[in-house]
Amino acid sequence: MKKNFNKTISEKEIIYKHLKKLNFNKKESFDFKNDGAILISKKNKQLVVTNDSIVESIDFFKDDDPESIAQKIMIYNLSDLSAMGAVPYSYTLSLSLPEGIQPNWIKKFTKKLFILQKKYKIFLIGGDISKSKEIIISGNFYGYVKKNTSIKREFSNVGDSIWITGNVGDSKIGLMIKKKQINISKNYKNYFLRKYFFPQHSTIGNKLINIANTAIDVSDGFCDDLFKLIDKKNGANLFFSKIPFSPYTKILIKKNLIDPFQLLNAGDDYQLIFTTPSKYDTKIISIAENTKCKISKIGTIIDRSGLYLDGKKMLNHHTSYQYLF
Amino acid sequence: MKKNFNKTISEKEIIYKHLKKLNFNKKESFDFKNDGAILISKKNKQLVVTNDSIVESIDFFKDDDPESIAQKIMIYNLSDLSAMGAVPYSYTLSLSLPEGIQPNWIKKFTKKLFILQKKYKIFLIGGDISKSKEIIISGNFYGYVKKNTSIKREFSNVGDSIWITGNVGDSKIGLMIKKKQINISKNYKNYFLRKYFFPQHSTIGNKLINIANTAIDVSDGFCDDLFKLIDKKNGANLFFSKIPFSPYTKILIKKNLIDPFQLLNAGDDYQLIFTTPSKYDTKIISIAENTKCKISKIGTIIDRSGLYLDGKKMLNHHTSYQYLF
Repeated sequence: MKKNFNKTISEKEIIYKHLKKLNFNKKESFDFKNDGAILISKKNKQLVVTNDSIVESIDFFKDDDPESIAQKIMIYNLSDLSAMGAVPYSYTLSLSLPEGIQPNWIKKFTKKLFILQKKYKIFLIGGDISKSKEIIISGNFYGYVKKNTSIKREFSNVGDSIWITGNVGDSKIGLMIKKKQINISKNYKNYFLRKYFFPQHSTIGNKLINIANTAIDVSDGFCDDLFKLIDKKNGANLFFSKIPFSPYTKILIKKNLIDPFQLLNAGDDYQLIFTTPSKYDTKIISIAENTKCKISKIGTIIDRSGLYLDGKKMLNHHTSYQYLF
Repeated sequence: MKKNFNKTISEKEIIYKHLKKLNFNKKESFDFKNDGAILISKKNKQLVVTNDSIVESIDFFKDDDPESIAQKIMIYNLSDLSAMGAVPYSYTLSLSLPEGIQPNWIKKFTKKLFILQKKYKIFLIGGDISKSKEIIISGNFYGYVKKNTSIKREFSNVGDSIWITGNVGDSKIGLMIKKKQINISKNYKNYFLRKYFFPQHSTIGNKLINIANTAIDVSDGFCDDLFKLIDKKNGANLFFSKIPFSPYTKILIKKNLIDPFQLLNAGDDYQLIFTTPSKYDTKIISIAENTKCKISKIGTIIDRSGLYLDGKKMLNHHTSYQYLF
């Protein structure tokens, strides 16, 4: 059905003035002139697809900078590719936009996509534009893994080491600042706000192939996501002192401005949690050194079901959801 | 970010009670337990992807049967695959659903998807669920074509025959009935309403490879879509007497209940318009016979720009849009 787009900027203008720059003239996109696009297959590689959507008022707020929204749709999906051990290749974008969307919004949004595409070496292969009441952006992102090597789920074994990249809770504190749930000095504020508005995912997933048994990115919440990696009959014992917090978060904890236990349910950090047989501990430490990526061993898989913190069973985490679809 | 879904049906329930049936236990989907899915590449084949979304109040109405909405997201995308000459393989679904969505809605919606998946031999490989104000469904559909054989755009040449499958305007009349813009007897009503609510696409695209120069499915509107196939320096001359209308539409035209010229801008029929060198005319006729598909030669590509009807330039069609992204 024809979608008569808004009066402010036409669909044609969105495509030819802004989105066209994002296909990097790749032949797979047919210059956006066909009903579809081609996904090139590579010898001895498999194509991986991830699908993640972001919705106004849930994943972002109406007045958020379009650059932040662009970064979120890209990082949420690239993070899923990384958790599969895949190297990014291309993506499609389904844009549902309200009538009054401004040309400047589109310009800023696509400019940020352009910058991130250059950074992560991907291009826009196709998509769809619709008129809607609120902004909803859905991305299908493609990546390559070596044949039969993608990191699977639910294969963690008792005795496995549990690792996490980066820090826990920075994005959550940023959201609390945005929601005025916490009031801290300006010096710290910008650090956390940036972590919330411009998340950066951990890109080391591809390095973990044949080493990690299982991996997930921290999106729903640290404990929730970790729990998805564990067989029901097993559990995890975490060492609280090893949970990585950023220097700024540590200051807030010291000043009693934030409860560190609250941060164990924080999501949106887009860091990777993964498990490895403990014999690979030194391998992980050298990957951390080579990639200059902070990787912390935070616990081990145990033969009792549930999550434990220094041996004590944790009660305040959600285990009833599976957001993996 | 965690998406706390509605109280009526949880995200977990949607996935494990309803969507899980749709992966047909295919290994590519990882049983919906991973962040992504694998797209299997086949020897000497290329993967094609199409992306189409449907939005409440534009592509369907809030109270439409969920079965109709399921059929639309599937047919809109399968139709695009057919226009590329691709054989369907699998799909991802991004479901943005309002809080109050009923379990019965989900049940009916997924049951229809199941039936159509069996019919078109495809399965659900992954996806995403979000909470939103209105229903928005985005699909990425995958298909295979033989390497370097997909039907491209903009290669129609002067003298080419222009063809269309099926009939023009049935869905549009159905929409007019739904909107009470036309009042006709019950006998005809159901035929047209069915064409609007349960569109069926033309599946012959794959048969046109190496024969058709270019192809498109009728979604935005017959003339609009045809116009996208034509190089700017060329045009099309249509024979009005050859435009295929269904027997029911012919009765309405005869009774002056519908203006046949109005139907030339009708969309949503999901039939294929394509062009071939005229030397292939007999080949197309035999494809029509073998596939039991109605295919009509409706005109030729000419060396004057624009659309002509029996030699007279048509003015009332839109040429300013390109909805091809």
